[in-house]
Amino acid sequence: MGMPTTLTTSDRFPFDLVRPHLEKVEASIRDQVRAFDPAVEPYVSYVCNTSGKRIRPALSILVGGAFGDLAEDQRKLGVILELIHMATLVHDDIIDGAVTRRMVPTANAKWGNGLSVLLGDALFSHALALATEFDDITICRKVGKASREVCEGEIVQTQRRFDLSLTKADYYRIIEMKTGALFAAATGIAAALSGADEETEHRLYHYGLRLGTVYQIYDDCLDLVGTEEKVGKTLRTDLEKGKLTLPILNLLESASESQRTKLNKRIIEQQPLDLSVLVGIAEYEGAIESAVDTACDMLEACRADLSGLPENDYTAALHQITRFLGTLLEKCRR
Amino acid sequence: MGMPTTLTTSDRFPFDLVRPHLEKVEASIRDQVRAFDPAVEPYVSYVCNTSGKRIRPALSILVGGAFGDLAEDQRKLGVILELIHMATLVHDDIIDGAVTRRMVPTANAKWGNGLSVLLGDALFSHALALATEFDDITICRKVGKASREVCEGEIVQTQRRFDLSLTKADYYRIIEMKTGALFAAATGIAAALSGADEETEHRLYHYGLRLGTVYQIYDDCLDLVGTEEKVGKTLRTDLEKGKLTLPILNLLESASESQRTKLNKRIIEQQPLDLSVLVGIAEYEGAIESAVDTACDMLEACRADLSGLPENDYTAALHQITRFLGTLLEKCRR
Repeated sequence: MGMPTTLTTSDRFPFDLVRPHLEKVEASIRDQVRAFDPAVEPYVSYVCNTSGKRIRPALSILVGGAFGDLAEDQRKLGVILELIHMATLVHDDIIDGAVTRRMVPTANAKWGNGLSVLLGDALFSHALALATEFDDITICRKVGKASREVCEGEIVQTQRRFDLSLTKADYYRIIEMKTGALFAAATGIAAALSGADEETEHRLYHYGLRLGTVYQIYDDCLDLVGTEEKVGKTLRTDLEKGKLTLPILNLLESASESQRTKLNKRIIEQQPLDLSVLVGIAEYEGAIESAVDTACDMLEACRADLSGLPENDYTAALHQITRFLGTLLEKCRR
Repeated sequence: MGMPTTLTTSDRFPFDLVRPHLEKVEASIRDQVRAFDPAVEPYVSYVCNTSGKRIRPALSILVGGAFGDLAEDQRKLGVILELIHMATLVHDDIIDGAVTRRMVPTANAKWGNGLSVLLGDALFSHALALATEFDDITICRKVGKASREVCEGEIVQTQRRFDLSLTKADYYRIIEMKTGALFAAATGIAAALSGADEETEHRLYHYGLRLGTVYQIYDDCLDLVGTEEKVGKTLRTDLEKGKLTLPILNLLESASESQRTKLNKRIIEQQPLDLSVLVGIAEYEGAIESAVDTACDMLEACRADLSGLPENDYTAALHQITRFLGTLLEKCRR
């Protein structure tokens, strides 16, 4: 996540607080490479060194910190969730036929789809094998459940491309599964590892679930309004792939009958939706505005989820992330 | 596994003994479908209903039976391992571009590669989530380790296609991981679930590991000498894909210098190896014979692994499987 210079200190992602811990997470991710057969190592190593934002590990570390419990366990949870996330990225890139990610060639571009399917599988199974190292099997259970939800979310999303009967409730369910589940695992399981009571764990689970959902809405808005140089990846892909995201669902809702008919026709024929068509035929800016409003409301709920946590720098950082995301969202408005 | 009519009773796969338990396994596999999001169910259901041979569940049930312990746990282990196996088949079919399996269209033929990548992931993550339901986390750990080995074996195999530096030791290591690991998990973990001591668990783990290895050697021989009508799947694919299997490695070994040069040239150029070329240039029948000999020796070791087990019908059935596989192997000789 970049840090635009216009942000105030309190709106920034609280990197300083988590940096020393994230460095240990990075070292641990690199260590995992050695757990694989020597012949498999170079592939795993390539994917692990393509540094990501490590949001999920950052969240589990902050939650641990909030409870004054920055034990090895929260970092380990972060490593596990990041490996699962990396596995889904490797498989997503195959599905999308993506050739670059974070400025370097994707695994499928380098070694073909076959090897990349297997590489994703290996990362995924290693992550779940790591999860069995926790002494408490309920932790392992929660990781297993989260990873299944991610896969299911991806399937439903793929299955319902170009599907005009998709409701907003369906959309929320999909992004809760595909993005929310791992965020929720990062915060909820970290709370459980810190010995939080069930209700507190539940609240932190929902903090992560909502935060992941907002993050996905932001990503979906960015796909429409971002510039490729700034975002650093190919945009407008949701339209091409028939992914009906929240801003697009808003557009369909606000369109006139004749506009909707025109739009529906393109979707039913599975024609890529061209942005200029959308901007021309419906209340385009209002659709983005409305999606941003929805996400900002959710961030309010996120902050409420944090009430009752011990007051310290880590709890403050969990609040700060919601403001940071809010600032990014505001930039999507025109 | 078909049952040729020429086999004697003692050489048959002991289906009668496991059938009632396998029926419960089938019912349980069908039940798993309901654990998925309703939108995902039909895909999972399609794959689960494409009935396989269920060898892995049969093995875990027989081992449980040998210890007089046919509890729910061994069937559950069988379900988990079968789901992992199904996930690898879904992904293998993508990699191989296979359009039919067991006479019906593959998942990738029906719904495309993208959805099939995700479907495999969902089956895989569900299997590992199921494994966390055992009270004993060491069971869960062993399942995780086995599934990682399967993925690694598949990667090394893919990576070393058309690689003339592949030794027999490399080949054995690959097939031990890709096929042996799940057989070994079926027998080893079933023993652990029955409360076997460490040494007995270890011996049964090796029984499964060797049995899986022999099964793969048989499959590799069949790819060369089988007839498609009898085997029910496309054959000669190993040659086309540059998979250097045991009979092919034997061929390379026994070829004259000039024959080997010719053969190496085709492999280095990644040209599909045509069977007629092989039969023409090297000691073809001897290469199959020698692979069969190797596999039969391993079956001897399998039987030795069973010494010390309680004498009962289930232990007898574990012996019977080795003889059954031996009879199938003998049919590969000309």
